[in-house]
Amino acid sequence: MLDFALTADGRPTYSLTCDGKDAILPSTLGFELVKAEPLLAGFRIDGVENAEEDETWQPVWGENSEIRNHYNELLVHLSQPATERKMDIRFRVYDDGAGFRYEFPIQDKLVYFVVKEERSQFAMPGDCLAWWIAGDYDTQEYEYTESRLSEIRHLIAGAVDSNLSQTVFSPTGVQTSIQLKADNGLYINLHEAALVDYSCMHLNLDDQNMVFESWLTPDAQGNKGHLQCPVKSPWRAIIVSDDARDMLASNLILNLNDPCAYDDVSWIKPVKYVGVWWEMIGGGKQWSYTFDLPSVKLDQLDYSKTKPHGQHSANTENVKRYIDFAAEHGFDQVLVEGWNIGWEDWSGNEKDYVFDFLTPYPDFDLPGLNAYAHSKGVRLMMHHETSASVRNYERHMEQAYQLMDKYGYNSVKSGYVGNIIPRGEHHYGQYMVNHYLYAVTEAAKHHIMVNGHEAVRPTGLCRTYPNLIGNESARGTEYESFVGNTPGHTTVLPFTRLQGGPMDYTPGIFEMDMTKVNPNRTSGHVNSTLARQLALYVTMYSPLQMAADIPDHYEQFMDAFQFIKDVPVDWQESRYLEAEPGRYITVARKDKNGEGWYVGCTAAEQGHESALALDFLDPNRQYVATVYSDAADAHYYDNPQAYKIQKGLVDNKTKLALKAAPGGGYAISIVPVADQAEAKALKKLKLK
Amino acid sequence: MLDFALTADGRPTYSLTCDGKDAILPSTLGFELVKAEPLLAGFRIDGVENAEEDETWQPVWGENSEIRNHYNELLVHLSQPATERKMDIRFRVYDDGAGFRYEFPIQDKLVYFVVKEERSQFAMPGDCLAWWIAGDYDTQEYEYTESRLSEIRHLIAGAVDSNLSQTVFSPTGVQTSIQLKADNGLYINLHEAALVDYSCMHLNLDDQNMVFESWLTPDAQGNKGHLQCPVKSPWRAIIVSDDARDMLASNLILNLNDPCAYDDVSWIKPVKYVGVWWEMIGGGKQWSYTFDLPSVKLDQLDYSKTKPHGQHSANTENVKRYIDFAAEHGFDQVLVEGWNIGWEDWSGNEKDYVFDFLTPYPDFDLPGLNAYAHSKGVRLMMHHETSASVRNYERHMEQAYQLMDKYGYNSVKSGYVGNIIPRGEHHYGQYMVNHYLYAVTEAAKHHIMVNGHEAVRPTGLCRTYPNLIGNESARGTEYESFVGNTPGHTTVLPFTRLQGGPMDYTPGIFEMDMTKVNPNRTSGHVNSTLARQLALYVTMYSPLQMAADIPDHYEQFMDAFQFIKDVPVDWQESRYLEAEPGRYITVARKDKNGEGWYVGCTAAEQGHESALALDFLDPNRQYVATVYSDAADAHYYDNPQAYKIQKGLVDNKTKLALKAAPGGGYAISIVPVADQAEAKALKKLKLK
Repeated sequence: MLDFALTADGRPTYSLTCDGKDAILPSTLGFELVKAEPLLAGFRIDGVENAEEDETWQPVWGENSEIRNHYNELLVHLSQPATERKMDIRFRVYDDGAGFRYEFPIQDKLVYFVVKEERSQFAMPGDCLAWWIAGDYDTQEYEYTESRLSEIRHLIAGAVDSNLSQTVFSPTGVQTSIQLKADNGLYINLHEAALVDYSCMHLNLDDQNMVFESWLTPDAQGNKGHLQCPVKSPWRAIIVSDDARDMLASNLILNLNDPCAYDDVSWIKPVKYVGVWWEMIGGGKQWSYTFDLPSVKLDQLDYSKTKPHGQHSANTENVKRYIDFAAEHGFDQVLVEGWNIGWEDWSGNEKDYVFDFLTPYPDFDLPGLNAYAHSKGVRLMMHHETSASVRNYERHMEQAYQLMDKYGYNSVKSGYVGNIIPRGEHHYGQYMVNHYLYAVTEAAKHHIMVNGHEAVRPTGLCRTYPNLIGNESARGTEYESFVGNTPGHTTVLPFTRLQGGPMDYTPGIFEMDMTKVNPNRTSGHVNSTLARQLALYVTMYSPLQMAADIPDHYEQFMDAFQFIKDVPVDWQESRYLEAEPGRYITVARKDKNGEGWYVGCTAAEQGHESALALDFLDPNRQYVATVYSDAADAHYYDNPQAYKIQKGLVDNKTKLALKAAPGGGYAISIVPVADQAEAKALKKLKLK
Repeated sequence: MLDFALTADGRPTYSLTCDGKDAILPSTLGFELVKAEPLLAGFRIDGVENAEEDETWQPVWGENSEIRNHYNELLVHLSQPATERKMDIRFRVYDDGAGFRYEFPIQDKLVYFVVKEERSQFAMPGDCLAWWIAGDYDTQEYEYTESRLSEIRHLIAGAVDSNLSQTVFSPTGVQTSIQLKADNGLYINLHEAALVDYSCMHLNLDDQNMVFESWLTPDAQGNKGHLQCPVKSPWRAIIVSDDARDMLASNLILNLNDPCAYDDVSWIKPVKYVGVWWEMIGGGKQWSYTFDLPSVKLDQLDYSKTKPHGQHSANTENVKRYIDFAAEHGFDQVLVEGWNIGWEDWSGNEKDYVFDFLTPYPDFDLPGLNAYAHSKGVRLMMHHETSASVRNYERHMEQAYQLMDKYGYNSVKSGYVGNIIPRGEHHYGQYMVNHYLYAVTEAAKHHIMVNGHEAVRPTGLCRTYPNLIGNESARGTEYESFVGNTPGHTTVLPFTRLQGGPMDYTPGIFEMDMTKVNPNRTSGHVNSTLARQLALYVTMYSPLQMAADIPDHYEQFMDAFQFIKDVPVDWQESRYLEAEPGRYITVARKDKNGEGWYVGCTAAEQGHESALALDFLDPNRQYVATVYSDAADAHYYDNPQAYKIQKGLVDNKTKLALKAAPGGGYAISIVPVADQAEAKALKKLKLK
């Protein structure tokens, strides 16, 4: 239940309860403006409007083929008589939470205004447990910390890794989505929805009173938003339930976004891919072509005069191997990073003209490789690292997309590593928020799908712009190579980062010892069992899934690799069976294009035991289940590759007792029995 | 003569003399860097190289059809042993001055660096007289002040008018080009040449020692340049002579620029034009279409639901009148401002998506008007006001140029009114310097000529990129409508602003009383005689010349208007006959495409008397001279429209005594006698 009121001095306040328990205590709303009176107090209510919506819509891709959008709406018309300005606040209350946004109608006394700070409060019911990362204007690539709110101030220094671009702003600043658990038993999640042409919101905690307040990302001049009436803020979203599984099953963020903006979406397809990537991330191979060029000027380059270092992965022969592998195993695409000139000198220098997105290295046969891939039913995936030089990217964007059209690319992985040019702008400011969506809508004109890395965290915009098929915007698998992720990391991400949209987490690493990937390394370990790597394809929902390891490693474990080949990337229905943030997640999903079900479970350091009832199966069918699970002695660090595969018949009465090792997990494919012969050849599944 | 040396502590210094007189006293050179040791002292000379050049080149358009580039060069290779960094300084010494630039070769210990400040000194020979405008990161639209250097500090507050975007930075900061006159009789001019991907240089005066030092324009973070080796600074240019006419005749700035970068220049043509402009600037007409829209969002606009205010000048009927007028009187083009949607709400709000450069107002028939113009041998001139929203302009630029291609525009007037977006950047910073040239080189791909207003001051780049046919970058005729220019303004501009390239000054105003232009006005006066308005077509060299007044006013003075119709916009030869900054300028120019000569003289408040010898004429020809001069009682304020026209035969022995009124001038056309009949019909010219 949501309550709205004005205080005695005319401040808008709201509070939220769930089944009689406090979720958000009375919290004030409003804005501080630059060179103008604040919009905080002195309001009166000019009127209210109530509405109800109950509709069902079909996403282009998703965890479910149908989504119900059911809410009660309260629109409060406020005015501030002293300044003759109007501000509306629209609330929507769902079964699993609520959202609100500010709406400024067209009016005489407020046309253009500059936001000094949004002052939206979220007063928490006490010193909650929280899974948080440090607030930062430029990166989200941090590990989550589980702590009481009161502990954030003491833990934040240790929660911040170094990054090529980072700007921590407050000792109690955190990012959204943040997952909380109150002592009254409520799980509470705070995020935003439909972030369009507005600065990304962080939360700053008053840790005396346990009140979060919005803290927007500033521009180069320190201002936090340039708005023109009529204008709406993004939605501020609160997901609430006493069951952690509801956090994961919630569609509240998607529902708060606008319907699809495109008439034709037939060109948007989920993608399973491999790529020329992990061998550079962890294996010592290079994006670059030569070591001869300490300073590259693209318009003065002549690679024919340089000595190739021989470590350039994006060469024609190597890419052909990946294409062959993709074709053989049914992957849609092959990502190739390092295909274009400029990588000798791309990062850390705030370089303006860093890439042209057009010119391949001399050893990368752009037309030939695309033709070769297409002849095998595979596409190459484009890569646009911008090095955060955004003007340069926009200058080349149309031509770059045209190049993709010409050679038959239909998806691009983009990257924004380093400090933003225009200088002084931040990754999450209004200027860049505008850019990321521009890249997506311009891509749509070319029927291109976008997977933006180092971009602003998603806020459900994939509903409106479903060619935004992925984002990084969190700490992905690459960090397993850099410094390792904690075993619990992927049991937090679905509660937090994934609230806004899919993540290109790039799972599927089979070789955990990085010194075996690159003999020149002396350390490096992927903190996961192999079985858990399979489970991630189910637990980390995305229409874009990479098998990130190198083909050599898959060829050593083809029985386990079978699950990656089999698992769909689009779903008819998803059921969260077990969940606790930072501990474990178990989910079952039904193939959107078939009758098969796929189950994934990931566990943190503590491991996890599941007692699964397969009552979600069709009672009129018999199924073949293949269980990929940790061996009894498996352990994410000491024995990560110990797995077992068990196969047998199941039906909707079947109950399975399963165990995930520390940092482990399991994956199950459950497909209808094809014919009587198959049924006879198999026994009822009995797990050992 | 130029001397170079290192001081005892290894500081590079230079000095310059002219015929034994000091022009620049010993001055140090170098850089302060961000987060790196300075490049100021501790240098040693690793070697020097001498060279000489004497070539003649042909500009695509210009004051002369051939330009001699004759210099001695000294290249000094410096290194700083303590940091193992190298810095070269290249000097070029001409008969009329010198230039130097910094060159950083490719090297190990200096690849990327950030400039905190360039420290190039110009130590003046005493407390010179100077014609200066206040240093400003965002505007040059100031009146010149004539004062001693020591007086700048006391006069600067009064020298700064308000502007929609302005950032004065120092009480002794001035802009280049600055014209100086030393007590030793030398005229000295300081400017820069070939400003490419570098911040525009101002000069800050140490007025205890009369030493100017470079003061670059900062970026949004306060840094002054992001450089990558190998890299060269722009040239720092010093023009010196004891004859003021040599300041105007100098080609030093052009010579310091690179040769033309385009293979094909056949599409670049000088342009004489009229335009839908002055009626809005001064006449109360509107760029906008309606008063109904206090807040325009281009993607939500529907003009059909608004009430036109009826004052929109860029309407089909009115533009046709201008096309007819242009065709009748032999003009090449018709500028139309206010043709595109968005002008209701374009300025002062730092609005991002302010124009699309594509969509005409409902009353502007874009295809029809272009077809009508072409049928009469006239083109429309495109107008791109960016409102300084530079990202938005770059996003639309290619489509905007394509629109021009489609309808047959071949020139564009662009504008940058207001504060720059990206926010915190300045009009004259490296980011924008890069942009202005990008707009020019992208235009060249479409065979489009560019006339940029509110852009950085030109530095001779028109030699390299001759489709940059004009710039504003100073206080133009529009200020005559706003608050008036001083009568001496146009006797300073050729010494200062025009050193870098032509100005779209938009002369030709015949009605000086602005209350007659717009009856709703109560004040406003153009501080010039009518005859001087004619002279400006000769004294203010430009390949792009507007007849800026409205057709109605020209139709009242068709005899005087004849000079504007006759005067060429491209020249074979130019001879500066008389000159003193802030007092008078008299120049004779020969038509590039004919045998005629055209003389112009402009005078300041004091008026001017000339005794002209027409010895530049071909001794074997007889000519018809038409003299357009101030009447005896003419005065820029009290009696500006009093002019007389006298016609007669002249030859190269003729001497003419001419008089310019206060704020007046004269214009003469001198064309070969066509035939004997004409010669008989005329008498020898005798001026009254």
